[in-house]
Amino acid sequence: MVGGGPGAMIGAAHRHAMWLDNQYILAAGIFGRDAASSAELAHSLGVERVYDDYRDMAEREADRDDGADVVAVVTPNDTHFEIAKAFLEAGIAVVCEKPLTNDSNTAAELVSIAESRGAILAVPHIYSAYAMVRHAARMVRNGDLGRIRFVAAEHASGWAWAEIDQWRMDPDIGGAAAAVGDVGTHALHLLRYITGLEATRVSAELSTLVPGRQVYDNATMRLTLSNGAPATVWATMAATGHEHGLRIRVFGDDASLEWRHEDPQHLTVRDPGGGSTILAHGMSTLSEDAARLTRVGLGHPDGFLEAFANFYLDLAEILRGQTARELSVPTGVDGLIGVQFVEATVASHAEDAAWVEVALGT
Amino acid sequence: MVGGGPGAMIGAAHRHAMWLDNQYILAAGIFGRDAASSAELAHSLGVERVYDDYRDMAEREADRDDGADVVAVVTPNDTHFEIAKAFLEAGIAVVCEKPLTNDSNTAAELVSIAESRGAILAVPHIYSAYAMVRHAARMVRNGDLGRIRFVAAEHASGWAWAEIDQWRMDPDIGGAAAAVGDVGTHALHLLRYITGLEATRVSAELSTLVPGRQVYDNATMRLTLSNGAPATVWATMAATGHEHGLRIRVFGDDASLEWRHEDPQHLTVRDPGGGSTILAHGMSTLSEDAARLTRVGLGHPDGFLEAFANFYLDLAEILRGQTARELSVPTGVDGLIGVQFVEATVASHAEDAAWVEVALGT
Amino acid sequence: MVGGGPGAMIGAAHRHAMWLDNQYILAAGIFGRDAASSAELAHSLGVERVYDDYRDMAEREADRDDGADVVAVVTPNDTHFEIAKAFLEAGIAVVCEKPLTNDSNTAAELVSIAESRGAILAVPHIYSAYAMVRHAARMVRNGDLGRIRFVAAEHASGWAWAEIDQWRMDPDIGGAAAAVGDVGTHALHLLRYITGLEATRVSAELSTLVPGRQVYDNATMRLTLSNGAPATVWATMAATGHEHGLRIRVFGDDASLEWRHEDPQHLTVRDPGGGSTILAHGMSTLSEDAARLTRVGLGHPDGFLEAFANFYLDLAEILRGQTARELSVPTGVDGLIGVQFVEATVASHAEDAAWVEVALGT
Amino acid sequence: MVGGGPGAMIGAAHRHAMWLDNQYILAAGIFGRDAASSAELAHSLGVERVYDDYRDMAEREADRDDGADVVAVVTPNDTHFEIAKAFLEAGIAVVCEKPLTNDSNTAAELVSIAESRGAILAVPHIYSAYAMVRHAARMVRNGDLGRIRFVAAEHASGWAWAEIDQWRMDPDIGGAAAAVGDVGTHALHLLRYITGLEATRVSAELSTLVPGRQVYDNATMRLTLSNGAPATVWATMAATGHEHGLRIRVFGDDASLEWRHEDPQHLTVRDPGGGSTILAHGMSTLSEDAARLTRVGLGHPDGFLEAFANFYLDLAEILRGQTARELSVPTGVDGLIGVQFVEATVASHAEDAAWVEVALGT
Repeated sequence: MVGGGPGAMIGAAHRHAMWLDNQYILAAGIFGRDAASSAELAHSLGVERVYDDYRDMAEREADRDDGADVVAVVTPNDTHFEIAKAFLEAGIAVVCEKPLTNDSNTAAELVSIAESRGAILAVPHIYSAYAMVRHAARMVRNGDLGRIRFVAAEHASGWAWAEIDQWRMDPDIGGAAAAVGDVGTHALHLLRYITGLEATRVSAELSTLVPGRQVYDNATMRLTLSNGAPATVWATMAATGHEHGLRIRVFGDDASLEWRHEDPQHLTVRDPGGGSTILAHGMSTLSEDAARLTRVGLGHPDGFLEAFANFYLDLAEILRGQTARELSVPTGVDGLIGVQFVEATVASHAEDAAWVEVALGT
Repeated sequence: MVGGGPGAMIGAAHRHAMWLDNQYILAAGIFGRDAASSAELAHSLGVERVYDDYRDMAEREADRDDGADVVAVVTPNDTHFEIAKAFLEAGIAVVCEKPLTNDSNTAAELVSIAESRGAILAVPHIYSAYAMVRHAARMVRNGDLGRIRFVAAEHASGWAWAEIDQWRMDPDIGGAAAAVGDVGTHALHLLRYITGLEATRVSAELSTLVPGRQVYDNATMRLTLSNGAPATVWATMAATGHEHGLRIRVFGDDASLEWRHEDPQHLTVRDPGGGSTILAHGMSTLSEDAARLTRVGLGHPDGFLEAFANFYLDLAEILRGQTARELSVPTGVDGLIGVQFVEATVASHAEDAAWVEVALGT
Repeated sequence: MVGGGPGAMIGAAHRHAMWLDNQYILAAGIFGRDAASSAELAHSLGVERVYDDYRDMAEREADRDDGADVVAVVTPNDTHFEIAKAFLEAGIAVVCEKPLTNDSNTAAELVSIAESRGAILAVPHIYSAYAMVRHAARMVRNGDLGRIRFVAAEHASGWAWAEIDQWRMDPDIGGAAAAVGDVGTHALHLLRYITGLEATRVSAELSTLVPGRQVYDNATMRLTLSNGAPATVWATMAATGHEHGLRIRVFGDDASLEWRHEDPQHLTVRDPGGGSTILAHGMSTLSEDAARLTRVGLGHPDGFLEAFANFYLDLAEILRGQTARELSVPTGVDGLIGVQFVEATVASHAEDAAWVEVALGT
Repeated sequence: MVGGGPGAMIGAAHRHAMWLDNQYILAAGIFGRDAASSAELAHSLGVERVYDDYRDMAEREADRDDGADVVAVVTPNDTHFEIAKAFLEAGIAVVCEKPLTNDSNTAAELVSIAESRGAILAVPHIYSAYAMVRHAARMVRNGDLGRIRFVAAEHASGWAWAEIDQWRMDPDIGGAAAAVGDVGTHALHLLRYITGLEATRVSAELSTLVPGRQVYDNATMRLTLSNGAPATVWATMAATGHEHGLRIRVFGDDASLEWRHEDPQHLTVRDPGGGSTILAHGMSTLSEDAARLTRVGLGHPDGFLEAFANFYLDLAEILRGQTARELSVPTGVDGLIGVQFVEATVASHAEDAAWVEVALGT
């Protein structure tokens, strides 16, 4: 692991997720820029090999017979590229936090390096690893909803409802379109994952809801999807009072579905007559995509860490050489698409929210 | 009443609402274009004076000492103007269903006639008459939310999820921007009513979700509000599986609130720390705006007809000559704004969803 | 109407319910013990004939050609018997609030008088008039749940969470088992109405939750139902923080259902696999029992007054001479059963919650 | 670990919970009665030391310098006593699934052995380890609810809604009062943990809801609590259609609270006026008891395994020699109380649900 020093929530989440199924050993890492606190944390975590420099780590881990199979990059956005690049070039698989990088050229370069080196590059859009999101994606692919006619996705969090001093609020580190990069990419990935559709054009209005803030903390987006259907994505970190706010509603000609991260072990399916059916993780009638992710059983709710562990479980399969499942972990291309999406929103915003054609993933 | 013949739900709703508080007597009307069925319905309703022609009705009711104080116009959209005009010119107050007319010139003319004749013109955006919506509006005016920073309103109904043969789906009768006219105007009014803000510009993407349909049954709108805050409005009748789908979330610097028509007697207030408080109609701590609309008490839910009756209660006060309350019934100007909003969305859509400046209500 | 003076909520509810469908004219009444305020209220309600004494009213209304068809008795519990008796003996139908009387002998006498005089006696357990409760009752009769194996009903209101000065808290007027009489009888009726089962034995623990209170404000009851299934009923007015708290869950061998008064237009049906289906009033697939009670349509919620109006609609049919529907208004026998239930709980409580055999309704 | 062979859900849950925080190494075990499959599972789990016999395991692990610090006993109920005894006598800490044993004498003996040997004995009533349950318990201790006046707890699961072939349905293995032992003890512990009150008498009606079943799968219980307040506990595995069904409502003189396992990261607090406040895990204003259990942050829901891991985190502190926190893991005494409760319900049932005095924990 690179990053995830003391107090960094996302690094801690990665670690719990790796441990939960006992499939990973945290053997090496750099836990923040301060060497002393990094070493101290490493010690408390039982990490054997602590490094000061990621290039050094990449090189030496690649050289060891028992070197790291995969490294998690959980540093601030503007450092992702160089760090991920170093490991990929050393042939070590990388899990890199989103946004993959701060511009699409470097993101594409990472994808390219990963391909040429045969190294796996995965991006932890964790929400797609919830069992009920998997089931939703399967339902769409099974045609249970009919043709998709409209999608409304939102990641409207309240975590930064007031000004805070953090790198995500610094445009030079996190990017100006912070709301899109930080949470909008999650909403977009969820939309793409469940529907199997891509955006072909984007219109975005970026705004700053918190007075004095230097980044855009709110974004309302319109998409045209690859099947011609319209969609909306709303992303913000300034939705006062919201806990988390990731939610998606997919409307088909025959039915619609809704999933909310506040209640992740349920999926609501609505039929045209007005009746709603609430499916629960652990039901015996769910698709194998969801059923295989059941650890305890019906009535024992999944939390965020179980979803995160699902991501690492699927990644472990791939690291062991298995072919990725149809509905598996987000890859570098998904990460690239996220970065392209951020750029498209910036471009659209610069033209007063005009439509911008996009060819995501290429 | 003009319109509201056999099977017409909205006409029936008006009647129940008038009766509920025993403040109105339904004394005269034309219940549909078919004279025989109109007479039959009138008879079953105990209506004494049945007419064949609204001009005749307006003239004769105006002449009677015990003539109608107010007439409800619940006919298809394209007839509103002529009918409402006839009654207003006769000095009779009019409750006219939304959209007030099919173009802003005629809507403005109705407002003008009403003013010049001193006749009341009201538009039944009923949702603003729910007690908890009134309380929400009062909270905003009290400053409980701080500065409004973002609003997300939606009226995403599923009632026309598949093609149906109805005048609302005929662009010549209901207008091409059916989703905006039919439900979007409700969402806009709710937004304006609760926040006290107006839109200064609009961007709209209109689309048709149901194959083969002749009108736009889906509209995604961005607004810039008069305080500079961004807002979104989503309107559709083709949200497969939705019961009703009217919902508003208002985000302020200090708190946010949410109201949903599926659970109208509650109002959720969220504080920045992540806690939610659910207020219920009937609580002793509510504002007088909500408290005065309590008929039974805490725990006895309000339905749509109680809200509709609240509209008629407030109207009755005005008809008796009282000054309208601060938070009272929507007027002709509100109706005009709705029509202007429909036109703005059509104009924006014609320019690929470009921003259109608006001066609503003028 | 007898009772329902200024400030009496339940009297007001009756009046709104009668008016809502324009099937009743409030023509005569005594609105409280104070003649002046009664007359004043009558005047404001447009009531033509005001009386001072219910015996006088019964006699004179019976004599008139246009005399009252039905009288609503909404006075304190200890006066129900004499008033209802006077009207029934005069051949006038009576709607009498529950508990019908304060002891089963007098309740049985009212039933007997009503029968011998051919006068209708109805008891407004209003909750059974909600469309979705009707649908639930139909589902059970259709066998959709299979054999009923357990029922949990509760009316756990918070309205009297602290001591208040009111006749319901005076054991001499409202009876000592206030929780059972005031709200427990509603829960019992709902259970009987939905399941079609009677209780054959009862065990009750009565307690006083609010310090210093003179009546039992809490009751936990066990029932054995006529098919042998166990059931529980919890009744209280001292459930701190509860809005209303009427809720029933019925478990069958094949499915279960739940209805809550806080959200009355929905009914949740649970299948054994763990999936829940939420049915909404207005759906086109509901039984005729529910469908016929739709005034506006899907997505326009019913409130308490619509349910109350349903009661009066059904009563109007019976008053016009129609045979009562299979699922219609509660009768005097239902009222008698409520009183017998109160007595059974008192008897059980006297023996430390021992089982008491009951033959309700006989 | 003893038990938790292939397919045993609860054993798997223990393992995930131990791993999640990387505080435990699973070093030794017997995974079911079949030696071959036990060895195979041990191998796949990376367990170094596999045994055939628990006595042998207890002896040899006690002898090793690096022997097990704690063993989890997750076998069928009727084997708990002998296995737990063997390890406790060897001075090894034991986590023993509930019910601790099948009779209170043996349960008391385990408590006694644990004390005399200074070995820790813990019982995984996991639900008390949810952050929001901890917060609820703290609120009660802080006096936020005032005097507790009534408690309604239920664990009404649907997992055994139809007959199944499993040891829990065999009275000789799981005990006749299966509903009380399997789920009722969880509800009782939750009640005791949150309120800090004990039961002083119990009345129970046991019944069999599923035709042909040999055990009581349903139990309705009344308790009198140590402060004199009444309470009810409902326990069943045959609540058709229920997911899990653990829920508690605690009513105080000043407020009430509700927690449901279907939505474990929230806690609803109701004030007498009818307003509800929903608290969420991760809020900055929660008590330290809840705050310290936050791994990711507000909006990232806890699941069952996080709660289970909380149990093991707290246990790890104790194993390291720290004094147990005020609100920490359930102990052997809690397990003994569970068994005494089961016995009290059987005794009450034998007397037609008469009250039975109890002195739980002694």
